Amino acid sequence: VTEQPVVGLMLGDATGIGPEVCAKVLAQGTARDRARIVVVGDARVLAMGAGDAGLRLDWRAYDNIDQVDWTAPEVPVVDLRNLDPATFARGKSSPEVGRITGETLRYMIEIALEGKLHGVCFAPLNKGALYQGGWKYYDEHQMFAALLRHQGYFGEMNVLDGVWTSRVTSHVGFKEVINLITPERLDNAIRLAYDTVKASGIAQPRIAVAALNPHAGDNGLFGDEEIRLIRPAVERAIGAGIDCDGPFPADAVFLRAFNGRHDAVVAMYHDQSQIAMKLMGFSKGIAVTAGLKTVFTTPAHGTAYDLVGQGKAITGPMENALRMAVTLAAGKLH
Amino acid sequence: VTEQPVVGLMLGDATGIGPEVCAKVLAQGTARDRARIVVVGDARVLAMGAGDAGLRLDWRAYDNIDQVDWTAPEVPVVDLRNLDPATFARGKSSPEVGRITGETLRYMIEIALEGKLHGVCFAPLNKGALYQGGWKYYDEHQMFAALLRHQGYFGEMNVLDGVWTSRVTSHVGFKEVINLITPERLDNAIRLAYDTVKASGIAQPRIAVAALNPHAGDNGLFGDEEIRLIRPAVERAIGAGIDCDGPFPADAVFLRAFNGRHDAVVAMYHDQSQIAMKLMGFSKGIAVTAGLKTVFTTPAHGTAYDLVGQGKAITGPMENALRMAVTLAAGKLH
Repeated sequence: VTEQPVVGLMLGDATGIGPEVCAKVLAQGTARDRARIVVVGDARVLAMGAGDAGLRLDWRAYDNIDQVDWTAPEVPVVDLRNLDPATFARGKSSPEVGRITGETLRYMIEIALEGKLHGVCFAPLNKGALYQGGWKYYDEHQMFAALLRHQGYFGEMNVLDGVWTSRVTSHVGFKEVINLITPERLDNAIRLAYDTVKASGIAQPRIAVAALNPHAGDNGLFGDEEIRLIRPAVERAIGAGIDCDGPFPADAVFLRAFNGRHDAVVAMYHDQSQIAMKLMGFSKGIAVTAGLKTVFTTPAHGTAYDLVGQGKAITGPMENALRMAVTLAAGKLH
Repeated sequence: VTEQPVVGLMLGDATGIGPEVCAKVLAQGTARDRARIVVVGDARVLAMGAGDAGLRLDWRAYDNIDQVDWTAPEVPVVDLRNLDPATFARGKSSPEVGRITGETLRYMIEIALEGKLHGVCFAPLNKGALYQGGWKYYDEHQMFAALLRHQGYFGEMNVLDGVWTSRVTSHVGFKEVINLITPERLDNAIRLAYDTVKASGIAQPRIAVAALNPHAGDNGLFGDEEIRLIRPAVERAIGAGIDCDGPFPADAVFLRAFNGRHDAVVAMYHDQSQIAMKLMGFSKGIAVTAGLKTVFTTPAHGTAYDLVGQGKAITGPMENALRMAVTLAAGKLH
């Protein structure tokens, strides 16, 4: 028997559509042939999600992950008994639910640190509720890295229609970007994109690097960062055996990628990639926290408070996020 | 009889699809009910275009625009006799054709300065050929402004699917952008967008202004230009009676506009608008040189050397460019 990765499914912020989406995906058995998938959270929230979805879901509750019988037919749930659905309102932000969401994520990271989880796939969070609930991180990626006591480079990647993006800089002011386009950060962002896309199952990922200046600087006419910094990083990557090309003008590189010429685009700054991804249908895609010991994936869409409790939430992005968590976590076994 | 604007149709770089596209649009009679449309260039190039298109086009040649009989049924051509199709190859760049393209544009601008042309609609140019042919401007917009001896603000605007974009900065290096986001430039870009969209026939244009920083700075967390500079400019515009809103995060504002909530987006820098417009099908749109005494419009697509001489070139963008030239030029009469 080939060893399978263990992937924890986290129900997201329970005020949103996460529990419903998770119940549907679990009922479909998505990726269950390739991984040991275990829900971690409150079993009553999962039951609520199954109720929202209008479906019957057989699960078995355990006190901790060591007790799970992986041969049992029911969906295993490590039942934290930390969130009673009778205690909060649906469809609106709750700092208390945010606090417990963070507790659940921390619990999952602790068992990951013990080697008992290889990946976490989480339904949509409410960043504001997490923050108000006492988890004072800028975003969940920072939180995961801190709780994993990660040192070094990591980053959010987005995946949409087979196109991956990574960013050399992210949540920093526009005027700081220029100082952060450094050889080390460029190398790290290209390497992160390459390693992650390769781990997703693309044998030889084709990486495109975006330019910083309009028209890629037009041979130095509008800025020389392409000549001084970006092209040398591309050449170092090629020297390291990576199929890497660029820098390409930012208004051309995403078209190239969505036309199938590249698997990933390394962007220089947040809006460069996010303008493109949002226009191309961002919320259909997924997000991956790349470069950490443990794999984290999530659908790119939000808690969709306007849809809560109606059974209408779509599952495609969550299915894709779960499949990606399984694939990337399997790569961590070798 | 209501006075009609006089709009010059320029055949573009004759090595490309411009002559064919112009011949087709003239044969359709696009906008001829609303303007006096006159071709300015070499009648032999127009004949070549009609031949490419496989259609019969009746025109009458004149030595200069004063001689044109606007009541004649034929398409009037001010025949410059400056470019014999026997002297150049089709489908590739020619500095000599670029030189003559520039001469034709200069001629048109001279008669515009005499008040005899109100607008110019030009088929695709070859920027490289123009430059190599001795017209040492960065782009055609700079050339038009210089030849018109224009002082003050002007700028390229792009129009696609009813969404207009203008830019506070354009062909400058990324690191220069931050220094150019000034109150004066912001006011000018908003005003240019408002005036031009209004002149296009939208009675009360709804202008959205993009942010500079990711997440619009997140209340100053990643940069304060939204607070210090951009929001005050939006408020000044509102105070001046403009329906203006923002700043909106750059990864949301174009979605809002393409969903019909705004008529124009004022972008802070080149790639911010161009990433969005290129992904949404830029080449189907048109470009307008806004803020000059004379109106200039052109289809956003290029010379399409791979299509030359086959009769396959589409006319939609050129028709839209001509209609827009007529509409904007009519506004110059009042």
